[in-house]
Amino acid sequence: MTKIALAIHGGCGVMPENSMTPEEWEGARRDLGAALRAGYALLKAGGSAINAVEAAVVVMENSPHFNAGHGAALNENGVHELDASIMDGATLEAGAISASHAIRNPVKAARLLMEDGRAVYMTGPAADRFAEEKGLPVEPQSYFTTQKRVDALQAMKRHAAAGTEGTENEKHGTVGAVALDAAGHLAAATSTGGYTNKPDGRVGDSPVIGAGTYARDGVCAVSGTGKGEFFIRYVVGHEIASRMAYLKQDIATATDGLINHDLAPHQIGAGLVALDAEGVVAAPYNTPGMFRGWVTPEGKAFVATHEEVFEVEL
Amino acid sequence: MTKIALAIHGGCGVMPENSMTPEEWEGARRDLGAALRAGYALLKAGGSAINAVEAAVVVMENSPHFNAGHGAALNENGVHELDASIMDGATLEAGAISASHAIRNPVKAARLLMEDGRAVYMTGPAADRFAEEKGLPVEPQSYFTTQKRVDALQAMKRHAAAGTEGTENEKHGTVGAVALDAAGHLAAATSTGGYTNKPDGRVGDSPVIGAGTYARDGVCAVSGTGKGEFFIRYVVGHEIASRMAYLKQDIATATDGLINHDLAPHQIGAGLVALDAEGVVAAPYNTPGMFRGWVTPEGKAFVATHEEVFEVEL
Repeated sequence: MTKIALAIHGGCGVMPENSMTPEEWEGARRDLGAALRAGYALLKAGGSAINAVEAAVVVMENSPHFNAGHGAALNENGVHELDASIMDGATLEAGAISASHAIRNPVKAARLLMEDGRAVYMTGPAADRFAEEKGLPVEPQSYFTTQKRVDALQAMKRHAAAGTEGTENEKHGTVGAVALDAAGHLAAATSTGGYTNKPDGRVGDSPVIGAGTYARDGVCAVSGTGKGEFFIRYVVGHEIASRMAYLKQDIATATDGLINHDLAPHQIGAGLVALDAEGVVAAPYNTPGMFRGWVTPEGKAFVATHEEVFEVEL
Repeated sequence: MTKIALAIHGGCGVMPENSMTPEEWEGARRDLGAALRAGYALLKAGGSAINAVEAAVVVMENSPHFNAGHGAALNENGVHELDASIMDGATLEAGAISASHAIRNPVKAARLLMEDGRAVYMTGPAADRFAEEKGLPVEPQSYFTTQKRVDALQAMKRHAAAGTEGTENEKHGTVGAVALDAAGHLAAATSTGGYTNKPDGRVGDSPVIGAGTYARDGVCAVSGTGKGEFFIRYVVGHEIASRMAYLKQDIATATDGLINHDLAPHQIGAGLVALDAEGVVAAPYNTPGMFRGWVTPEGKAFVATHEEVFEVEL
């Protein structure tokens, strides 16, 4: 069988152990495993990388443990504004949505926009209407809200009032997936609620093709997490692809170069998952932890939140 | 004196001679000249590239002849939705605005967002509120509307109803500027109303850093015009920078490669202006015409709409 590969992330940050209950850590790992299974089942059956990344991201959007879809962060007005994108490395086709208030699964809207062709990128209420018109479930804001995100917003408001810094755990989060299918095609997808207490209307890197999401057959697929403003300025996804394609760097070198060298002076949280054209995985992060998972070429699946790695059933 | 350089565009397209009156062609060239003068005066006085590109773009936003600010295209709902961005090659700092309905000069809002630091990218009504809060003039929709754009929307609606193609002239348009200052810094800025009859909420490449706007000291500055969806998918600005930095292509080769090779199979209108770190200008386009202008290292200024080039006073 031709090589297939999948890697996912559920956001990076400080993630101190006491920030979640043992049940929540367990639940997050379980849902990472479920996301891997959803994507890998498709790849294993000969399905496309673009379908696999969409399926994996949908599982994480539906999980309360990650900052996307249900469980998304609240902005400064206590509103969920959701961003997502998807890119097919075979065709360089892409779809992106920003500032959605209602789409249950923003990555599905990005995918449908990619296929619809009327635009690559759509923002605001029009994106919500597009999703609804296409038959995707739209939800009231309350669907996206969890008590954890309400508490996080209150904590960040207190920090803002006191002039203190919130923990990275309160600030970051995004979900994403990258896949290589049996036909040799790469794809990437990313979805996020942004960060807690983000400015109204703020758009991060998740819907910016080339920054938070990028895929090109024969080179790499990348999905980022962290302080999106810097991913935009450094065009992180496409920069990694450029160093691999033109400087012949391997994926470990190229991704490490961005996360641990180029972005380092800014002292921001940053991480990503990436795959090269042979299915080699890279998942660097500069924070104490990153929710992540991957499947080895031998078909073994692993999930992790910090250093310790857990094998999971596929 | 150290080298300084400036290049601008006011959009590309078929631009048949009968699509504008002689007075309009004259007015468009006059306003291109005014944009060059506004940017060049700053550079000549030792001002920064970022100030120069902003000043040049403001002149074109204020002109009725170009599709940005006053004179912007109308979307499918007869609404002006404005996108803009700016990037400082010295710091890789950037600011971007999408789907503004009210900001008189979107490039100024992008610049203020860049300096404000609360975000790199802001969309929708929040962007309008940000601009107003910063003291920028906001306008009713009627400020942006010209009879020409009303007619163009009607024409495109007729084409859509009849299943015929509108001319490129009715469809394209964007303004942009790139500059090199005496300190050796590069900058780029882009502003647009999108295209006539564009879908509600559609965002093109103009606010996408790496796609329609990109600048990095020592490499290049790029501002694009054309079918933005493809500029996003090909990450055009950053791709040009990557080929120059990593493949050591010169600016003519790198920009020609994107416009006349990579994008060619898609048969879409595309053009751009770019500067390298030595102030060498490239202004390729694959359409019959592109509104454009530049200043030579000797301080001579030229504007053009098609092949013929007109020298203008600085």
